[in-house]
Amino acid sequence: MTFRAVDLIELKRDGGELPADAIEWFITSYTVGDVTDYQMSALAMAIYFNGMSNAELTAWTAAMLHSGDVLDFSHIEAKKVDKHSTGGVGDKISIPLAPLVAACGVAIPMMSGRGLGHTGGTLDKLESIPGFDPHLDAGRFTRILEEHRLVLAGQSASMVPADRKLYALRDASGTVPSIPLIASSIMAKKLAEGLDGLVLDVKVGSGAFMKNLDSARTLAREMVAIGETSNVRTVSLLTDMSQPLGREVGNANEIHESVDVLRGDGPKDVTNLTLSLGEVMLELAGIEGGRDLLDEAIVTGRALQKLLDVVEAQGGNPSVLEDPSLLPVAQHTEQFTASRSGYVSRCDPRIIGLAAMRLGAGRRHKDESIDHSVGITVEAKIGDRVEAGDLLALVHHNSPDEYAGHEAHLQSAWEITDEAPVEPSLIIERIDASTI
Amino acid sequence: MTFRAVDLIELKRDGGELPADAIEWFITSYTVGDVTDYQMSALAMAIYFNGMSNAELTAWTAAMLHSGDVLDFSHIEAKKVDKHSTGGVGDKISIPLAPLVAACGVAIPMMSGRGLGHTGGTLDKLESIPGFDPHLDAGRFTRILEEHRLVLAGQSASMVPADRKLYALRDASGTVPSIPLIASSIMAKKLAEGLDGLVLDVKVGSGAFMKNLDSARTLAREMVAIGETSNVRTVSLLTDMSQPLGREVGNANEIHESVDVLRGDGPKDVTNLTLSLGEVMLELAGIEGGRDLLDEAIVTGRALQKLLDVVEAQGGNPSVLEDPSLLPVAQHTEQFTASRSGYVSRCDPRIIGLAAMRLGAGRRHKDESIDHSVGITVEAKIGDRVEAGDLLALVHHNSPDEYAGHEAHLQSAWEITDEAPVEPSLIIERIDASTI
Repeated sequence: MTFRAVDLIELKRDGGELPADAIEWFITSYTVGDVTDYQMSALAMAIYFNGMSNAELTAWTAAMLHSGDVLDFSHIEAKKVDKHSTGGVGDKISIPLAPLVAACGVAIPMMSGRGLGHTGGTLDKLESIPGFDPHLDAGRFTRILEEHRLVLAGQSASMVPADRKLYALRDASGTVPSIPLIASSIMAKKLAEGLDGLVLDVKVGSGAFMKNLDSARTLAREMVAIGETSNVRTVSLLTDMSQPLGREVGNANEIHESVDVLRGDGPKDVTNLTLSLGEVMLELAGIEGGRDLLDEAIVTGRALQKLLDVVEAQGGNPSVLEDPSLLPVAQHTEQFTASRSGYVSRCDPRIIGLAAMRLGAGRRHKDESIDHSVGITVEAKIGDRVEAGDLLALVHHNSPDEYAGHEAHLQSAWEITDEAPVEPSLIIERIDASTI
Repeated sequence: MTFRAVDLIELKRDGGELPADAIEWFITSYTVGDVTDYQMSALAMAIYFNGMSNAELTAWTAAMLHSGDVLDFSHIEAKKVDKHSTGGVGDKISIPLAPLVAACGVAIPMMSGRGLGHTGGTLDKLESIPGFDPHLDAGRFTRILEEHRLVLAGQSASMVPADRKLYALRDASGTVPSIPLIASSIMAKKLAEGLDGLVLDVKVGSGAFMKNLDSARTLAREMVAIGETSNVRTVSLLTDMSQPLGREVGNANEIHESVDVLRGDGPKDVTNLTLSLGEVMLELAGIEGGRDLLDEAIVTGRALQKLLDVVEAQGGNPSVLEDPSLLPVAQHTEQFTASRSGYVSRCDPRIIGLAAMRLGAGRRHKDESIDHSVGITVEAKIGDRVEAGDLLALVHHNSPDEYAGHEAHLQSAWEITDEAPVEPSLIIERIDASTI
């Protein structure tokens, strides 16, 4: 069946519902260049205003998914489950979570992305490990997954090409913050991994892409609906991003903190979120034992050993994980202290994330390189009591000039008040097939 | 000052107001290709949803206008006034109106367009006259205007290039029916003619682009606001397009009817609308005498002589206007009759316009050619009493097969009822500086 692009744009513009075959035609034609960029950007803007129904969302995601290679690991007996986070500051959860859950019998063909702006990316953090290579061809990806039930890779160029093309267009045409387009972009990439189950960590708060609970809930529901309609069991947790996750914001320092979690010695929030997401992943894989099984994998060292094995299989030096002093270290550390006594009532993740980015831990533009050694250690978080002169943060940097220029802005991340604030709940809400 | 296209798209998307210098930058950059088609189509879709303020409209129109040549006839003493119609079926008003008003002392540098779909175009109709050439270079355009106070031309490629580029993009990206984009497109083209005054005939009804009074009124107000802010006195009349204007729909037959009007022998509606618009044009030119002056120009033959002179100056054979049997004539004429007795309660201009188009009087696509000889003579209009077997229309065609295929559809244009309907008012409302 063939269509005219302009007719479909007008239908969406006027509030109509696009038929599934029309959506497939539009995206397939766009991928090969028969539908133009200017028609796709007009349609994306119409979707920004008029949204998409669940049927449209499912068809849109399927069309994106089938624009490229779709992986199939059905020959691997273990259930295949992955996790995706919408991104936050200090969010290193994938790094302890994936080996922990793999150590409990789930296969995890994890594909991660890079950081942009104030949020970091799992691939960037893993590349702090000397020799580690996330760029695997299909054969090597599959062999490592078969052997270790875990692989930590970037997405290959042959998967969801329509999403790459569309994302670049949305970025340049003002159509990024459309919830259905975000939901389908995330889900197309994840569904291409050939999963049985998927847990989504949807961050809410000033450091997240979704600033408020309503939009986060809508995004989570749309993604769960797409996953379930596509026969992938999908659960979403809405989690707090009103302050950085854990103490470490950067790259090498986040690897260090991830190892601490796998040693049973991580910060409470990172540990709890890792365990909560891990429980959901076991549930999705149909593995009983839940929290106990996860605790046991940590206590016995099997979870850490899983990370060491996979890092080594991907060319990395596992000894840096046993002795994190071998990870890249910044030349300078500045102490950043409280100017008054009281309770920390604000610890703004966006400001802290941008400060880390400016030090070199992140990138403003896609083609910038990363300094894995720099970062920020957050010493005082919301609800903590501090006295004037107490440490709020340690700033690890390689450029005193650069640091001096941003100190004042970093200062504005913390607010100290006389009254103790209400501490934010880390896990806000669970959304699954029963609640959408 | 420089901007980022995506920032301006996002500002409009989020309901903000674009500063005048940002609009100028966007349109100038788009015209030279620095802003891409996909950014402009996304902005156009955001404007479709969020509209434009009067300040934005004025800046947008000015930027379009200044994308190309702007004419200057200040050396011609007479006031320069033009008329624009949003287009309808049987709307040949420009052809009698322009020479009539020019004969009363107003200079009319008229630039007209071609027809598309169910509506005809003044240029197509004028080209029914053997030899007539609407494609004039700037020198010839000015000389004819200087000598005759009237010139009947198409717009040159060097004028408002941004509008041509944007219109083609809107046509392919589903962003045509945005009132501010329509208003600025029309006004940029007209303001480039170097006018002192402008009358706008905004058609309302099933045969018009604006189907209802509210949208027509909004369009008229926006255009009057742009004109007045740009120091061109502008008046808009909202006029009826719930049935064809006059009796003739086509090309050569509409020239014939236009000559009838200039001889004082035209259909009542065409004559009245011509005189009403003519009165406004005289008012805008500051010429006293109004209706009497127009009547005198008809009675004395000066108005018709003006048309003959200008047709001859533009290479046309003026004798066909004195003896319209010399105009192209179709080979066949079919009688189209009433199937029952009663009152004509519907005479759908869109169906009649499309039927004429299919006979060859109009074009589906921009690059199609026209058969000037074919058309439809409407013999029964709303409110007329007919008996079964009475003539509703004469269909002039050159292809019996083509006619047979469309007869049933043409039939649906008329409805005959027992009760006499309320006849539509030809002139619905006047909108000018005092009423916006």
